[in-house]
Amino acid sequence: MAVYTQLGATALAEIIAAFDVGALVSAKGISEGVSNSNWLIETDRARFILTMYEQRTDVSELPFFLGLLDHLAAHGCPVPRTIHDRAGQSHRFHQGKALALIEFLPGVSVNEPNPAQAHAVGAALARVHLAAADFAGTRSNSLGLADWQALIGACGAQGLASIDPGLAELVTQELAFLTQNWPQDLPRSVIHADLFPDNVLMLGDAVTGLIDFYFACTDITAYDLAITHAAWCFSDGGKRFDPAISQALLSGYQAIRPLAAQERAELPILARGAAMRFLATRSYDWLHTATDAMVTRKDPMAFARRLEFYSSPENAAIFGV
Amino acid sequence: MAVYTQLGATALAEIIAAFDVGALVSAKGISEGVSNSNWLIETDRARFILTMYEQRTDVSELPFFLGLLDHLAAHGCPVPRTIHDRAGQSHRFHQGKALALIEFLPGVSVNEPNPAQAHAVGAALARVHLAAADFAGTRSNSLGLADWQALIGACGAQGLASIDPGLAELVTQELAFLTQNWPQDLPRSVIHADLFPDNVLMLGDAVTGLIDFYFACTDITAYDLAITHAAWCFSDGGKRFDPAISQALLSGYQAIRPLAAQERAELPILARGAAMRFLATRSYDWLHTATDAMVTRKDPMAFARRLEFYSSPENAAIFGV
Repeated sequence: MAVYTQLGATALAEIIAAFDVGALVSAKGISEGVSNSNWLIETDRARFILTMYEQRTDVSELPFFLGLLDHLAAHGCPVPRTIHDRAGQSHRFHQGKALALIEFLPGVSVNEPNPAQAHAVGAALARVHLAAADFAGTRSNSLGLADWQALIGACGAQGLASIDPGLAELVTQELAFLTQNWPQDLPRSVIHADLFPDNVLMLGDAVTGLIDFYFACTDITAYDLAITHAAWCFSDGGKRFDPAISQALLSGYQAIRPLAAQERAELPILARGAAMRFLATRSYDWLHTATDAMVTRKDPMAFARRLEFYSSPENAAIFGV
Repeated sequence: MAVYTQLGATALAEIIAAFDVGALVSAKGISEGVSNSNWLIETDRARFILTMYEQRTDVSELPFFLGLLDHLAAHGCPVPRTIHDRAGQSHRFHQGKALALIEFLPGVSVNEPNPAQAHAVGAALARVHLAAADFAGTRSNSLGLADWQALIGACGAQGLASIDPGLAELVTQELAFLTQNWPQDLPRSVIHADLFPDNVLMLGDAVTGLIDFYFACTDITAYDLAITHAAWCFSDGGKRFDPAISQALLSGYQAIRPLAAQERAELPILARGAAMRFLATRSYDWLHTATDAMVTRKDPMAFARRLEFYSSPENAAIFGV
């Protein structure tokens, strides 16, 4: 991953000339993003990320994704702005493929976060939620409860058993529980829905960029915190929970957007849903990715372990419940 | 291709701290190089390419490759300098893998060169040959005539026939001819040996960087010009020869390093060797790369067509023979 399209110097210069950003000085294909092609572009004025959208991105959704970046950036969130072309468009087409030019942000993704970094990420996520409140765009979540069920169904009992002997029973029980108990009345907003450490740029303990909003959608606001919790608070393949990271993330978030009592009460089940969401997609991808493809398959069991952790009643206390 | 190794922020910061280059600001894995992992690194002072050498690079050869870059850069050639670490070393090790930090050069690779660009590339190659004259390092060519024979042998008649019905006969005849006639007494020097457009960075018509010296070796100097000729002067899968590019490349080279009469006389056979070298490796790779691997297989026939072009006596005139 991930440069699916080859762009020669002529094409690159032509693309860049459509924007008022100066002359092309350098372009390097970068291995970021799993479903799009990306280049780090340098002009004589600044640096940018050029993204070309491949099959997995629905072009009709680009106004939502790109409009969201502009909205959040205008509200002071550390997200990359979309550079509009000379005609004012947020995206263009090159040989039938949509592309966008996006602000380059400094920072690197941390792989072993410390509590100060988790606190900063929690606060940045809360700021996104507050800033998104008056964003007009909406997008339904294409990876909600019904989709987890469909993905697990497509794996089949035999497929799940090939991943782990106990997996089918775990997901059957959990899907039944989530179907019965998934919250219906919690506050909703646009959420990032995929805020793993990979998608956060940091310098020291400060967040310099939240990136890759291509799963963003309208859903339960606190579910985004639950996803971020599942993404940040475990190490060693989901085997080790880090209470200091958890505490810092939750308090960083609440320093900006205090959770309502009902949101806090529902966090344990939202966290079970978050673990199920990644367990479902990873199980499906595990069974449908050729083992000799040059893509690293991500172990589904890392999220089965999180699911078991969140399902255990004594662990509800980590959310102050 | 190609980030084979994952490096987290902690590891990256630790690696960069071993060099006197400032603090890490950004790191993006880039899809350059087929056998190494590369990152575009930004510090608060400058930008660099970090290369981590994977299995295909013999670490004992790094002093040759990296010393060559330093030698050529010191002689004014547009090649990236190696940044030595605080202990003065040109390469270091991280978790058992060798890595080097290399100067970042501006420019983009052209895909449809014009004659002015070909002239500039010819001149840049000639400057490398002159500058390499007093470089002390030597490295034998691991892709010489004996290796072409071995690679073609490993393809087998059936394998070659699966690529093209006429390929086995073509390579058998050509290998016999080259074995009989390969020049023995031409001037030798360090050569780049892989100067395709991919490995040249340009801004406008000027060469800003010659990169990827990992095939560099000691061999016939004019053979490097023949390789560059085969790499630059054809389009449309080797079907279309561009005489204006050819003429510009050769005159650009000779403006800096005029060819001796014997070198010019042997250029047609050197060009046949150059075409055979890439035909041999591409045929081998074609038959030994899984069709579902995420690597683009390069069509061997693009070089079979060049080989036929160079073998045709009437085409010797393009070299002034």
